[in-house]
Amino acid sequence: MTLYFEDLSPGQTFTSRAETLDEAAIIAFARAFDPQPFHTDSEAAKDSFFGGLAASGWHTASLTMRLIVDSVTLAGGVVGAGVEIAWTKPVRPGDALYAVSEVLELNASRSKPDRGMAVVRTETRNQRGEVVQVITSKLVVIRRPA
Amino acid sequence: MTLYFEDLSPGQTFTSRAETLDEAAIIAFARAFDPQPFHTDSEAAKDSFFGGLAASGWHTASLTMRLIVDSVTLAGGVVGAGVEIAWTKPVRPGDALYAVSEVLELNASRSKPDRGMAVVRTETRNQRGEVVQVITSKLVVIRRPA
Repeated sequence: MTLYFEDLSPGQTFTSRAETLDEAAIIAFARAFDPQPFHTDSEAAKDSFFGGLAASGWHTASLTMRLIVDSVTLAGGVVGAGVEIAWTKPVRPGDALYAVSEVLELNASRSKPDRGMAVVRTETRNQRGEVVQVITSKLVVIRRPA
Repeated sequence: MTLYFEDLSPGQTFTSRAETLDEAAIIAFARAFDPQPFHTDSEAAKDSFFGGLAASGWHTASLTMRLIVDSVTLAGGVVGAGVEIAWTKPVRPGDALYAVSEVLELNASRSKPDRGMAVVRTETRNQRGEVVQVITSKLVVIRRPA
């Protein structure tokens, strides 16, 4: 279902499917974008800040975007002007992550009558329901054509 | 050079090498993490919000992390507790991006004498010097052992 600005309301939530991050995927992402031993080498990671291999926060964030695109089906797509991210717990190999997005605020644009801005808070949770990341996004949302 | 908390001061800057994002890389990242037509299909992108193919903001953010890891060589690695991101201009195929990071604030931990927190602002700029993204990060930084 394609959602326009008029279809959203504060408190509305969207829950995605879950996706499992295995060790090979964690290491491949980190080698490309965040090549630090605690993300690329299980042995070296044991003595690190994380106490074991952990996914790059940017991997968790990027995977969460995939889950948001799948579950929050906005007209015109999911387009963010900016976000805040908090990483609250490490993501470990084998964790199955899903995203729960809640609409916090809606503001119609004064200057552009065809759109509005939605503030959406997305919790990424693991298979134990623990929150591993919180992203608060400002999204551009198209209004339903008259 | 490995940098400890004591080696940092407000106003200090770090400039990375540049890396070029080509169309194939933009599309591959977007297919995996942000499969929306304006990131995966140059033809469809022409009629979108972006007016042409643009990199996923998560691709720009992840690449920026790579550039930060290369240029801000903190003892113990670059570990962020949280970030704010603003995407200020689209990133296009062929753009060569580099990151300029500036230390804004330093706070020694009261409870953990072996570390401090640094607030770092990273501008990602293209080959014309235009700022395409700003990330403000709170980083955990290890103190020099006594």
